[in-house]
Amino acid sequence: MTRERLYLFDTTLRDGAQTNGVDFSLHDKRMIAALLDDLGIDYVEGGYPGANPADTELFAEKPDLHHARFTAFGMTRRAGRSISNDPGVAGLLEAKADAICFVAKSSAYQVRVALETTKEENLASIRDSVAAAKKAGREVMLDCEHFFDGYKEDAEFAIACAKAAYDSGARWVVLCDTNGGTMPHEVETIVTEVVKQIPGDHIGIHAHNDTEQAVANSLAAVRAGARQIQGTLNGLGERCGNANLCSLIPTLKLKKEFSNRFEVSVSDEKLATLVKASRALDDILNRAPDRHAPYVGASAFVTKTGIHASAILKDPATYEHVTPETVGNHRQVLVSDQAGRSNVLAELERAGIPFDKDDPKLTRLIDEVKTREAAGYAYESADASFDLLARRTLGRVPEFFRVDQFDVNVEQRYNAMGRRVTVAMAVVKVEVEGETLISAAEGNGPVNALDVALRKDLGRYQKYIDGLKLVDYRVRILNGGTEAVTRVLIESEDEAGERWTTVGVSPNIIDASFQALMDSVIYKLVKSNAAA
Amino acid sequence: MTRERLYLFDTTLRDGAQTNGVDFSLHDKRMIAALLDDLGIDYVEGGYPGANPADTELFAEKPDLHHARFTAFGMTRRAGRSISNDPGVAGLLEAKADAICFVAKSSAYQVRVALETTKEENLASIRDSVAAAKKAGREVMLDCEHFFDGYKEDAEFAIACAKAAYDSGARWVVLCDTNGGTMPHEVETIVTEVVKQIPGDHIGIHAHNDTEQAVANSLAAVRAGARQIQGTLNGLGERCGNANLCSLIPTLKLKKEFSNRFEVSVSDEKLATLVKASRALDDILNRAPDRHAPYVGASAFVTKTGIHASAILKDPATYEHVTPETVGNHRQVLVSDQAGRSNVLAELERAGIPFDKDDPKLTRLIDEVKTREAAGYAYESADASFDLLARRTLGRVPEFFRVDQFDVNVEQRYNAMGRRVTVAMAVVKVEVEGETLISAAEGNGPVNALDVALRKDLGRYQKYIDGLKLVDYRVRILNGGTEAVTRVLIESEDEAGERWTTVGVSPNIIDASFQALMDSVIYKLVKSNAAA
Repeated sequence: MTRERLYLFDTTLRDGAQTNGVDFSLHDKRMIAALLDDLGIDYVEGGYPGANPADTELFAEKPDLHHARFTAFGMTRRAGRSISNDPGVAGLLEAKADAICFVAKSSAYQVRVALETTKEENLASIRDSVAAAKKAGREVMLDCEHFFDGYKEDAEFAIACAKAAYDSGARWVVLCDTNGGTMPHEVETIVTEVVKQIPGDHIGIHAHNDTEQAVANSLAAVRAGARQIQGTLNGLGERCGNANLCSLIPTLKLKKEFSNRFEVSVSDEKLATLVKASRALDDILNRAPDRHAPYVGASAFVTKTGIHASAILKDPATYEHVTPETVGNHRQVLVSDQAGRSNVLAELERAGIPFDKDDPKLTRLIDEVKTREAAGYAYESADASFDLLARRTLGRVPEFFRVDQFDVNVEQRYNAMGRRVTVAMAVVKVEVEGETLISAAEGNGPVNALDVALRKDLGRYQKYIDGLKLVDYRVRILNGGTEAVTRVLIESEDEAGERWTTVGVSPNIIDASFQALMDSVIYKLVKSNAAA
Repeated sequence: MTRERLYLFDTTLRDGAQTNGVDFSLHDKRMIAALLDDLGIDYVEGGYPGANPADTELFAEKPDLHHARFTAFGMTRRAGRSISNDPGVAGLLEAKADAICFVAKSSAYQVRVALETTKEENLASIRDSVAAAKKAGREVMLDCEHFFDGYKEDAEFAIACAKAAYDSGARWVVLCDTNGGTMPHEVETIVTEVVKQIPGDHIGIHAHNDTEQAVANSLAAVRAGARQIQGTLNGLGERCGNANLCSLIPTLKLKKEFSNRFEVSVSDEKLATLVKASRALDDILNRAPDRHAPYVGASAFVTKTGIHASAILKDPATYEHVTPETVGNHRQVLVSDQAGRSNVLAELERAGIPFDKDDPKLTRLIDEVKTREAAGYAYESADASFDLLARRTLGRVPEFFRVDQFDVNVEQRYNAMGRRVTVAMAVVKVEVEGETLISAAEGNGPVNALDVALRKDLGRYQKYIDGLKLVDYRVRILNGGTEAVTRVLIESEDEAGERWTTVGVSPNIIDASFQALMDSVIYKLVKSNAAA
């Protein structure tokens, strides 16, 4: 059976960057590009070189991607300019990218109202821009902005824009439902018409979620003949977001109607890392993952109803449309601790902590993890804190030192020069093998001061923590309102470049931070075998 | 033009109550039932009398609904029992409800594996239960569980279950995609077959969101002939949720293809309260609203891209598929480093800050926004801080008060009982109209202590800020490593329920938090016209 190739185009770093509240740093973009490449995405759109300094810098050097084609986005030449006279197009051609995705209007109304130019000039701009990029050796695509609205208003012009790109050498012509208001059956009807004029394996779909149908619209386009899908991880994107690749990829791979007909570049092994990829993006954005997200949400395979639970115990297929493990998720039946147990065992194995399957302490550990996770601890993200909790419960962590007291002070006042200054200071009193050590430190903030003071003098253990560095610090408020608790995640790095994450939870942010700092130091001591 | 009537059935209180983490009290259920009734929903499913004490009590007395029919949910009689001998059915018949919605399997596989009974007994159970409820004077419905999976496996039996209910007098036969794995085109094909045997105006659709297509599946069923849609507010429901009525209702009312053909019981006036209804449910559940939700999300009509912003200023229809006010939402053009002059102007207009297009201060404001955003300020998220920055740059914010000094202390030690305690205290010294006021406060953390101390005594301005509440607090570390700065976003609410967000940036988290707190208080004073 030969299956047709379906291409996946990710625009998390470009259209996703338009999400209200999302603000990628250059480092974020590089991490996410690597993650998408690893997943098996065909095209990674990095951004819009020239639009802002971070995107320009991103395209100054091509990232080291193994499969994905790195794609630069930008506008076709402006009306009335020549290619050689358009700094935007020049920037695109200079960008270190495998492919260039231009965007141009394909709606007569938009050309008239938004661009204030003529249809002819719009077509010429498409032809000139595509030809120039093609000549520069790039794979070229055109995002036909407002294609579906444009088609409904003036089909001939919409098609003319698409054909102008295709005839000028564009590898892909992407039909965009820019405002997100098109219905799936309209997408199907219109794409069916388009593929009569341009081969479907040159047609892409770019859908937005304004009526909650971006996924359905993308699949409708594929059914009608389109062979490239543009979307974002977790459905990131302006307004209500873009088509969600975390929903589309599993459907394409797991639903027979699609998997029998189409091949995508995400392998079964990589599909099983989809939950991880989805969470990694949320972590970078410091966003709470959507528990109810299809396939990848923490609740996507959770059963609460009693009658469903008993059926699931007979045969999971009674209440599951796919097997959770295929996407790296897991089943959870709220009346059974089966899932929890196997997760904990898997994590112990991963961390290399020896255990005996029949040890009653194991059950205590599982209960402890559940209780603490319900209170806000995130052991899925905090590998080192899980490691310590497991070792403590199974009885294997020495008390290297004990903190008797700490005190942090932040003061803001006007100094002698009349300038506002803020000073943070901390004092920590520890007991190391019977000896009391008091250290004080200043910091650029209370957590930094506390961190420096804590690690200033730990007596005989000092040498093990000298190379320790705090590399990331994330805070989230859980539950909101008056009962809010603060969760702090701290990422640390040692002199060998190894990184680990610890967690602290408390109504008091300083207390939560201190828990995470302590775990980080103790983890390092355990890892260094400092008690030996 | 006569339009066909389309009925809306809400199951927020029944299927929505299966959501992981959702636990409605009796009072919650009564409030939500009233809210749904007010919106114009045709059927409000209250719960499952007999399944838990709250639901039993809810159905002990019929709520005072004006339009909606109050509906009780429950199973058909158990296999091998007679109606008079089945306490579940007896409880349903006793429930004070206008309608009864039974659920029964309609899949041969489920009957065999989950129920462990025969097809014949399953059909007899449907017939008996529907007839008994009908005889008791109730409007009767049957949820055909697993209908689509069952149809694909054994169409004849699935149809037989549906027909058994219809022939026994059920007003509605509801086709359920219980596991949520059915594709829209499959729904359309199967419903088209069903309505050849049972009139479409007796057919309902009940879709789940496991492939992110519950909305598309519901609309596909309507296109194929179904005339009742079951769903929940905000798409609440087990696993990935049910079909989202907050997306469906606007589409049915605002998209011509549906509004020309169908009439729903939600008026235009009530449609304009949809955002309010959606937020009210989130408030009851103490959940953060989904900013990106179609139609009702805070970001649903928010534009960040510069080129989109300039088009929206020419004509909002260029980037909006419907007018935000129709659902009670509003347009917003964000200020961000992506954006230029047009975003800033649009935001000034929205905020009602008067400006002169030729004022050189305007250019200074745009530069200031860019500089500060580069330093980490996120004005797109912090509407109130943008508002103040704009007013200050254009010269319009009085100095209500001046903070001379603050001091925050967090101490952790062992108390007399040997228990570890953490104490946070703050002192703030302010000058209000020449008078120096010093306030001190404890808090559950340093920011809370500082917040309470700052707002304890602001002299003549105190009355304006008494109703102020800090409702959310978010922290992000920017740039990572030693040069890291902390960005704090604070969301505040006043006594009228209005919310606004402020931002602070500093290497010191306390300093950043204090900036955001100050902006919040000053914004409230400006808004209250406190200087007058």
